[in-house]
Amino acid sequence: MKVLVIGAGAIGGFYGALLAKQGAEVSVICQSDYQQVKQHGFIIDSHSLGQWNFKPTEVLQSIDDYKDNADYILLCTKVIPEINRVELIKKAVKPETSIVFIQNGVEIEQELQTAFPDNEIVSGLAFICSNRIEPGVISHLAYGRLTFGNIPGNVSKKTQQLADVFNQSGIKCQTSHEIIKARWQKCVWNAPFNPLSVLSGGLYTLDILTNQEAYVRKIMHEVVDIAVATGNHLAPDIIDINVSSTYAMPPYKTSMLLDFEAARTMETEAILGNAVRAGQRENVPCPHLESIYAMMQLKVLKPITTA
Amino acid sequence: MKVLVIGAGAIGGFYGALLAKQGAEVSVICQSDYQQVKQHGFIIDSHSLGQWNFKPTEVLQSIDDYKDNADYILLCTKVIPEINRVELIKKAVKPETSIVFIQNGVEIEQELQTAFPDNEIVSGLAFICSNRIEPGVISHLAYGRLTFGNIPGNVSKKTQQLADVFNQSGIKCQTSHEIIKARWQKCVWNAPFNPLSVLSGGLYTLDILTNQEAYVRKIMHEVVDIAVATGNHLAPDIIDINVSSTYAMPPYKTSMLLDFEAARTMETEAILGNAVRAGQRENVPCPHLESIYAMMQLKVLKPITTA
Repeated sequence: MKVLVIGAGAIGGFYGALLAKQGAEVSVICQSDYQQVKQHGFIIDSHSLGQWNFKPTEVLQSIDDYKDNADYILLCTKVIPEINRVELIKKAVKPETSIVFIQNGVEIEQELQTAFPDNEIVSGLAFICSNRIEPGVISHLAYGRLTFGNIPGNVSKKTQQLADVFNQSGIKCQTSHEIIKARWQKCVWNAPFNPLSVLSGGLYTLDILTNQEAYVRKIMHEVVDIAVATGNHLAPDIIDINVSSTYAMPPYKTSMLLDFEAARTMETEAILGNAVRAGQRENVPCPHLESIYAMMQLKVLKPITTA
Repeated sequence: MKVLVIGAGAIGGFYGALLAKQGAEVSVICQSDYQQVKQHGFIIDSHSLGQWNFKPTEVLQSIDDYKDNADYILLCTKVIPEINRVELIKKAVKPETSIVFIQNGVEIEQELQTAFPDNEIVSGLAFICSNRIEPGVISHLAYGRLTFGNIPGNVSKKTQQLADVFNQSGIKCQTSHEIIKARWQKCVWNAPFNPLSVLSGGLYTLDILTNQEAYVRKIMHEVVDIAVATGNHLAPDIIDINVSSTYAMPPYKTSMLLDFEAARTMETEAILGNAVRAGQRENVPCPHLESIYAMMQLKVLKPITTA
């Protein structure tokens, strides 16, 4: 099994390391940490799977240098406007390549389907807490579960094989015939908590929920309504479950808040902008989502004026 | 004309000084700057009216020390939950006292009417940019216009007399039979720009408008709808006028943003909370206002949890 990981950071480095541990030939495209990884590989420090050194088959600075035929491309970058996902991978996409993306957001499949109509496109969701703590060092702190499904809504043999290897590696990997629905499910949680953690000035999930549960529920409702309008009927108790499980979670600092604090681009468009655009396209009123989206755009604005 | 100014800061100190200049006996309740003002009075430095020294008739630290009968109480504090306006003034309210408040917000009249049913209650709006730049020193930077009207909707002889003195002092002071409507009018501007300047992380009005005009208009529309439901029919072009005049204004840092940056309590409840509550009471949907209001509450939250 030949795998090319594109975006070998906290997510891509970790999942690539798991596949390599099971015997896959895993190469990585690695930009910022190239020198370190080329020389020493990755150190993976996992709360549940121990510590090990992951030496990729090839460590490349650019996709231009990849001459092999990957069975799977694992695309693990953030989904942000400054990254053109199609351009990023296209030189390595061969007829037999499955394009697997482990990324956040809703409605992020179409551009890959359009660009690579003859390839298997596999949508992947990760529930994981992992950080790149220094060049080539990845700390896996909690969770790790994956869900994969082919687009538009099946599970190919090749996708199942990939899931099997992940399961053998020690994390849980499900396959789903409803992966698009699973993305909307995840968005029910992401749409309120990610932006509110930023707009509130740095609150943890529990404070947001304790103080504005009714408001959080209104946002979740709008996501559910949009999901339904796009043909994805979420379970009727999904909001209650999200609320109660968030009360039960340890106070959590969202990924958007971590990005904001580190002055990195947030996944506002993938998570929030795409949901709002879907709502507008399907004529589903979503004023609360629109409000948060507008405020997130203001939040990152470079002022053009001063008094 | 005997006037007692309560809350003698940038607003109360300035307007009190104008009345004193016209011969009124103006006393002030002055807490934080008491020593300075008691000894030296106020220095008023006005962009349009020059610089002068305002020596109040009496400078008092507490309303308990005021033994005179004021014709007018000028209440100029911020409207925030930690200030009980009724308690603050009641010891100085005599049967003949007109209670004039120059304060921000909508639906802030009722508590004064209820507490002082036999007194004239005069609602005042100031369009002014003035700052207390050090103890006893007030810088008047721009504008200065006042509008007064008795509650519920007339202009008494005494109110007209007060307005006349202000007009003689060099600023413009209008009287209105529709002062409650005028408050909603002002709220059309305040409701979007004040909170968004804070939630955006410090943007000036022009940046907010340039980037999110459609969103600003939606918020304004909800305020107009609520105003109409409360019986205050604003002019049909009020939103267009607010938008175009804000484009024409110099980039402006809102009072809420100044308060937030100085870690002072913001007038969120008076401006936004009262509007949302009026909307809920009148069954007017206002999801954008509710969103901003919820976010402003999160923004000032002291976190109870850390990870």
